[in-house]
Amino acid sequence: MMRAVQVTGYHDKLQMSEVPDPTPSGPLDVVVKIGGAGVCRTDLHILEGQWAEKSQVQLPYTIGHENAGWVHAVGDAVTNVAVGDPVILHPLVTCGLCRACRFGDDVHCENSRFPGIDTDGGYADYLLTNARSVVKLDPSLEPAAVAALADAGLTAYHAAAKAARALHPGDFCVMIGAGGLGHIGVQVMRAISAATLVVVDRNPDALALAAEIGADQTVLADGDHVEKVLEITGGKGAEAVIDFVGEGGATAEGVAMLRRAGNYYVVGYGENISVPTIDIVSTEINIIGNLVGSYNDLVELMALAARGKVKLHTSTYALDDFQTAIDDLDHGRVRGRAILIP
Amino acid sequence: MMRAVQVTGYHDKLQMSEVPDPTPSGPLDVVVKIGGAGVCRTDLHILEGQWAEKSQVQLPYTIGHENAGWVHAVGDAVTNVAVGDPVILHPLVTCGLCRACRFGDDVHCENSRFPGIDTDGGYADYLLTNARSVVKLDPSLEPAAVAALADAGLTAYHAAAKAARALHPGDFCVMIGAGGLGHIGVQVMRAISAATLVVVDRNPDALALAAEIGADQTVLADGDHVEKVLEITGGKGAEAVIDFVGEGGATAEGVAMLRRAGNYYVVGYGENISVPTIDIVSTEINIIGNLVGSYNDLVELMALAARGKVKLHTSTYALDDFQTAIDDLDHGRVRGRAILIP
Amino acid sequence: MMRAVQVTGYHDKLQMSEVPDPTPSGPLDVVVKIGGAGVCRTDLHILEGQWAEKSQVQLPYTIGHENAGWVHAVGDAVTNVAVGDPVILHPLVTCGLCRACRFGDDVHCENSRFPGIDTDGGYADYLLTNARSVVKLDPSLEPAAVAALADAGLTAYHAAAKAARALHPGDFCVMIGAGGLGHIGVQVMRAISAATLVVVDRNPDALALAAEIGADQTVLADGDHVEKVLEITGGKGAEAVIDFVGEGGATAEGVAMLRRAGNYYVVGYGENISVPTIDIVSTEINIIGNLVGSYNDLVELMALAARGKVKLHTSTYALDDFQTAIDDLDHGRVRGRAILIP
Amino acid sequence: MMRAVQVTGYHDKLQMSEVPDPTPSGPLDVVVKIGGAGVCRTDLHILEGQWAEKSQVQLPYTIGHENAGWVHAVGDAVTNVAVGDPVILHPLVTCGLCRACRFGDDVHCENSRFPGIDTDGGYADYLLTNARSVVKLDPSLEPAAVAALADAGLTAYHAAAKAARALHPGDFCVMIGAGGLGHIGVQVMRAISAATLVVVDRNPDALALAAEIGADQTVLADGDHVEKVLEITGGKGAEAVIDFVGEGGATAEGVAMLRRAGNYYVVGYGENISVPTIDIVSTEINIIGNLVGSYNDLVELMALAARGKVKLHTSTYALDDFQTAIDDLDHGRVRGRAILIP
Repeated sequence: MMRAVQVTGYHDKLQMSEVPDPTPSGPLDVVVKIGGAGVCRTDLHILEGQWAEKSQVQLPYTIGHENAGWVHAVGDAVTNVAVGDPVILHPLVTCGLCRACRFGDDVHCENSRFPGIDTDGGYADYLLTNARSVVKLDPSLEPAAVAALADAGLTAYHAAAKAARALHPGDFCVMIGAGGLGHIGVQVMRAISAATLVVVDRNPDALALAAEIGADQTVLADGDHVEKVLEITGGKGAEAVIDFVGEGGATAEGVAMLRRAGNYYVVGYGENISVPTIDIVSTEINIIGNLVGSYNDLVELMALAARGKVKLHTSTYALDDFQTAIDDLDHGRVRGRAILIP
Repeated sequence: MMRAVQVTGYHDKLQMSEVPDPTPSGPLDVVVKIGGAGVCRTDLHILEGQWAEKSQVQLPYTIGHENAGWVHAVGDAVTNVAVGDPVILHPLVTCGLCRACRFGDDVHCENSRFPGIDTDGGYADYLLTNARSVVKLDPSLEPAAVAALADAGLTAYHAAAKAARALHPGDFCVMIGAGGLGHIGVQVMRAISAATLVVVDRNPDALALAAEIGADQTVLADGDHVEKVLEITGGKGAEAVIDFVGEGGATAEGVAMLRRAGNYYVVGYGENISVPTIDIVSTEINIIGNLVGSYNDLVELMALAARGKVKLHTSTYALDDFQTAIDDLDHGRVRGRAILIP
Repeated sequence: MMRAVQVTGYHDKLQMSEVPDPTPSGPLDVVVKIGGAGVCRTDLHILEGQWAEKSQVQLPYTIGHENAGWVHAVGDAVTNVAVGDPVILHPLVTCGLCRACRFGDDVHCENSRFPGIDTDGGYADYLLTNARSVVKLDPSLEPAAVAALADAGLTAYHAAAKAARALHPGDFCVMIGAGGLGHIGVQVMRAISAATLVVVDRNPDALALAAEIGADQTVLADGDHVEKVLEITGGKGAEAVIDFVGEGGATAEGVAMLRRAGNYYVVGYGENISVPTIDIVSTEINIIGNLVGSYNDLVELMALAARGKVKLHTSTYALDDFQTAIDDLDHGRVRGRAILIP
Repeated sequence: MMRAVQVTGYHDKLQMSEVPDPTPSGPLDVVVKIGGAGVCRTDLHILEGQWAEKSQVQLPYTIGHENAGWVHAVGDAVTNVAVGDPVILHPLVTCGLCRACRFGDDVHCENSRFPGIDTDGGYADYLLTNARSVVKLDPSLEPAAVAALADAGLTAYHAAAKAARALHPGDFCVMIGAGGLGHIGVQVMRAISAATLVVVDRNPDALALAAEIGADQTVLADGDHVEKVLEITGGKGAEAVIDFVGEGGATAEGVAMLRRAGNYYVVGYGENISVPTIDIVSTEINIIGNLVGSYNDLVELMALAARGKVKLHTSTYALDDFQTAIDDLDHGRVRGRAILIP
């Protein structure tokens, strides 16, 4: 038997339970001993029932969707990891058989599961996943230190890497929002691109951090920020705008910051994006959706982490103190990301 | 002196004038003897004053922005065409020096002019342009037969060719609107892609023509068309939707026809496109703007025309009968495209 | 027990054996009832022992690496096919876990097996493979009619599709060799590209067939063929040369047919390619390797076949007549491709 | 009249002459006051007559093909620079009208001239070029400090940027040769990619410098270097090998260092590259030619220079001391690049 923090009812508190240890039943199954599980705002939303209909998950179940640890047991067809390997877990468990999986776009798998959302997750001693979800870590990386990169970090990497592929030295890339995701996005962009990076945020502290970790210029979102970005870009706008906010007017502002033929990357969400088709056509801009990254994206993000190019500030809590972590997150008392350590 | 049909006042009729023959003054100048000038709905809008503010053109000036003919005189640095060559004219006269021009994205030239819109166009015996705008025609092509491909056709080619680059055999491409542009788009897509092509239109005759020239399936836009497209695509939606309409609800319908990670190409315009950011993110779709094609796009479209893969139905009028052509267009009496022949 | 044609010793004849029926043991296993197995020149080479060292296969084993049929039994995790489905088999059985597989480049799988080469193949009543290798066929396609596309056809598709991605209407594509692969390559290129297709071969009959199925121009390889290609291309050479021969001087000739910045695709092999680095640099040409296609490439090739865009001439033999088929192939008596039908 | 160092006869010494000042005669002409002209090994080869046949240049003429300075006079159609602007000169003067120019591949212009090679160059007070060749410099950059990036540096940038587009974090990039070009290549790759960079050279000092400016690992080319690279890459080889040497066996070694599906970039030249087609096919490698970069490549390289990401060590000489500079270069006495300052 092992410990597992479970959702037993919506609008109730999480409960610590004793449940059977998972064991590999299929040849590609992998059981991971959890080294760290990220506590995410989504976990609060789950408790509020926001995901109940969408996930159709059967209660009780174990939450936690940002997980890393060590391989504890493997099915007999597993070739990519061995018992004892430190690993981070891609948030999805994918089929490997549909056309999307066969192209490497496993995020669009037609038969995926999402541990911590629609099946048992990582607020526990052990987690059952499969060989397609485990990325072996460089020995220099501690599971607890990178766990929170598994979902939010991976999303930021995916968007920044996609944008970087279309950027040249001398181009401008604007990032709206220097919080959790933006903070990773800045580090990623700095590592793989020489575009001039302009970061926009309402919070001067977030801007100060952005400048420290790689932003070339920062712009306080004080109402004049669209004009300031246009000025910085010589009146032409930026080749890329990556919007980590997606609400409160950010989408209209982001589009207004674009250069002709520029790309606006939607990452954060909340409001509708509403643009006259005549504007899309006459300036030939693109609006690019971004979901979490693929398995290979996670491999690449871990390569950046191993080289020290992407760092994350974390606050750790013992698994048994899960309620404190949840409460701290809910009340804005966590510095960086909260991580549960079993 | 030569004949030129001019705008002398907004909300007035066009006037036939006698104006001086243009002559090459710069080394890259090219004077083209007009062989055919397309009569376009935009010309009606110009007369209504809709472009007055945007173009800032000085009246009187000669309209006509879809032009082809023969090279009549060249400046001394022109190397790509010679006197007597049949040519079609790219709609823009571009600088060749800005970064966009240097990338081949001349449509985004920072210093372009647009004959027929903001400077003298082709409803005339001769037109002054430059070497960067003239595409030499295959001897098999008559200028009057291809003139109308210079703008509308080029836009359709640009969007279809962009979409085709991301399509594989077995993928689905939906085109909304089988009118002037869609009709070219179908032929282009058929020539360069083996995607399954589904055409949606409100007009059964337009659908019948689309089927004849290459659509694999046609869907009448009768209110159930989104469901029908989803059914045709096995419930998954299409990898690409090219929207030649852009109004009357087409944008929401087009987005609803998309597969996960699909691309929606905006070509027609009119309404706002309004999509929840959560939908863009969770399905990771892209909204792609499309303006007219580049110079090289026009070269490629002419290669297709020379191979007989893109055909256009035209109705010809003598230049002196310009008012009849305008009236016929205004009253829906033109079959195919109206072309003025000097 | 079932029939299986086996290699029992190198330099010996193939032997018909009775062996146990394969059954699915793993959850992703698939047993296919063979509908047709292509007889390939590689099979002759296997018997001569040319592959003994490379494949390290244990004798006796069943040969046959171009297979199609119907799903006979499946492991319990198979979701992409069901019993009774007509299928074609990708030539490799891949792991789905290595980085190449995760990118969709399964051909570069680090842990693949190759039925018919290093494990039991398809000259038999049944074949054991797995879910990652079976592509479901459109109901319009007979397994025996498409089996020979599984390897040779897939290679031609892969190279032609790769070349097509860099070609525009009006560009020139030269194919050297209009035999088994080239014949498929012509049909593929015709279906997905409007490039001008020039086919070179020593055999006038092959050229006549090429012209019939889509070549725009044919050139007899009579010693003046490089000059003729240069003439056809206006003295500039072709944007793409796809070489299905790769011996007898074809590589030097192919490179000589290239335009500046052109791409030379190596498909056939035999001789060394030897080019001065100064020539590669000063004309900035690329030499592109091509192996067999990926799983998704095979899906796309089958989509072309289902649309009637790729056809293959076959001569069928009963499985029991395997020796006749082998002898006919060895003596050049097969028209099209020989297929064994159990 | 101005000073100009001219070739008056092959195998003779260069001569200082008085020649008329160039003036703009065409509307796109630009006269540049030279701020620095790189002294390159090619200049020695020109004097030896190695370029006589190829360039067909008429003697006497002014050499010097790596030039930067300030705009002195412009034709009346020049919009991209103004008198007084600091500029670097792209090595080619291109037509802007051929298909290659229209795609931005101006290096493959069908009508280019090459100042310093086939027309008057920059060992002079002034140089005549045109608007298509001048790149405006950031105010922080001194023309004399960047002049030597105009040709050699641009070639290194072009190859490294092309390679970077196909590299992911965690991939391996090997550079063979850490001399003039390699030294720029290392800095470029470091600025735009997070691939692991392995540099191979025979010279320990060059390796020490490479490590200082961004190489992750260095390998002495002592005979075991292929094995060492394979070991560093986990026995799999590198995704990219950029060969700045191209002679003395480097090509065979470079290909041997490749991973399956890897790319070998030819930059340096001298020997033939000779590879069995079976190896190209079975590993599906690519051999990629690299010439000098485009105009936009030079814009991007200058953006890197302005950010301090690419630095060049130079030794300056007064224009009148041209013979000393030539002699020093010929005898290996120049540290970094020699620059003539008028």
